[in-house]
Amino acid sequence: MTTQALVSEIKKKQSFLCIGLDVDLSKIPPHLLELEDPIFEFNKEIIQATHHLCVAYKPNTAFYEAYGLKGWRSLEKTINYLNTNHPEIFTIADAKRGDIGNTSSMYAKAFFEDLAFDSITVAPYMGKDSIEPFLEFSNKHTIMLALTSNSGAYDFQTMTTINGQPLYKSVLESSKNWKNSKNLMYVVGATKATYFSEIRNIVPDSFLLVPGVGAQGGSLAEVCKYGMNAQVGLLVNSSRGIIYASSGIDFASHAAQKAQVIQSEMAHIMADCF
Amino acid sequence: MTTQALVSEIKKKQSFLCIGLDVDLSKIPPHLLELEDPIFEFNKEIIQATHHLCVAYKPNTAFYEAYGLKGWRSLEKTINYLNTNHPEIFTIADAKRGDIGNTSSMYAKAFFEDLAFDSITVAPYMGKDSIEPFLEFSNKHTIMLALTSNSGAYDFQTMTTINGQPLYKSVLESSKNWKNSKNLMYVVGATKATYFSEIRNIVPDSFLLVPGVGAQGGSLAEVCKYGMNAQVGLLVNSSRGIIYASSGIDFASHAAQKAQVIQSEMAHIMADCF
Repeated sequence: MTTQALVSEIKKKQSFLCIGLDVDLSKIPPHLLELEDPIFEFNKEIIQATHHLCVAYKPNTAFYEAYGLKGWRSLEKTINYLNTNHPEIFTIADAKRGDIGNTSSMYAKAFFEDLAFDSITVAPYMGKDSIEPFLEFSNKHTIMLALTSNSGAYDFQTMTTINGQPLYKSVLESSKNWKNSKNLMYVVGATKATYFSEIRNIVPDSFLLVPGVGAQGGSLAEVCKYGMNAQVGLLVNSSRGIIYASSGIDFASHAAQKAQVIQSEMAHIMADCF
Repeated sequence: MTTQALVSEIKKKQSFLCIGLDVDLSKIPPHLLELEDPIFEFNKEIIQATHHLCVAYKPNTAFYEAYGLKGWRSLEKTINYLNTNHPEIFTIADAKRGDIGNTSSMYAKAFFEDLAFDSITVAPYMGKDSIEPFLEFSNKHTIMLALTSNSGAYDFQTMTTINGQPLYKSVLESSKNWKNSKNLMYVVGATKATYFSEIRNIVPDSFLLVPGVGAQGGSLAEVCKYGMNAQVGLLVNSSRGIIYASSGIDFASHAAQKAQVIQSEMAHIMADCF
């Protein structure tokens, strides 16, 4: 998917919501456990109930790998269902991969070609040659960790480096010089909303994927105030707060209600800004 | 596997060789492609021919994920084959994972419980709470990236931080204070052998997983000179240099010859040191 197609969809739906499909069998409605593929059935119902309210879905690969072959099959079925029924939706493999060059190429092939995701999250520790293989793919997007929403973000990401700025800023700045850097987006946690204006000075035009709204305590209004750009430039993710809104048979409609609340807030914010 | 069992195996075999099972279908002997599971058949023959010369095998998950469900099944069959036939072998899932706490717990479950690997490689960018979930598992080992062997290692890992030392040293030092840090090992690339003595000052007792000998140009003698400790403390990996020694029907015996050369050099070094 092109960035322009994503922006059009955001403006059409008045939403920049991403829903995280982090499916834990111990948390989904018990009646689904009797089905052959509970994870896929859960995802399908969530997607059917919420696709008009969001622009992106983000399965975190950990939750699928934890169930071995069956989990990987559920992931395949989920991305195939999305690509077949909702090609207008932006899909994110939240995989946080990264390895030496030829190995990163294999990951890129796995997620961009075989599974046909629009994007993948990657970790920057191994530097330029671990990320550039992902950037070679046209109309595919590589979402690099910059400043995450967990407490461990303060261990290394905010550590001051020799040029007087925190590591995550050096990561952002360096990445702008990499080949095909236009295919980069960045993960920036919502729990640090005031950091957004400084981040926007470095990457004014890039999309930011923002976890941490809701369950992790971040404020949507604050994130938008400091993080939005002329193309919106934000994908705000919510996972548990939406998909586990209820454990009853009607879980999907409860999820839709939660998504609707966020979409309405987003529409208000967009009405003020555009 | 306990660290002590690994050390015993190293001393018994006079080897601290790890063989990387990075199987690319475009590089394996063509006659295997006619079989139902070429990747597993390749691995099985390599293991049968080399298990007496090495103490560890390290499949890199990228090479399995690139083939989707079939690849994941090959990975499962490979680890099951190793655990059933060679329980004395230390197994490493080279996965370079890392995510927020509850998600890292899912990865730990996937690789330590479902697949029953002895260890997994992880990336440190997200800090303490992204790694500690892996450290909770008894007799399982978490091998964190410190200083890697690729050119991108110089992008961020060697960047000087506010305390006057490079990032990778801050990563090493911080990690020593994490809960169950005794379950940590570290990735240190062989292409930077002179760094090993400084690294040993920080983590004198930890095992180091060392890629970059051979194909990437590192010297085994140099690595041992600066990196070995009283328990050997090294696992030196070779992947392509061994497994792709030949593309003929007798590829496994050629691989064994390459492994034998390295094991002999290791035995000489150990004879000098112990």
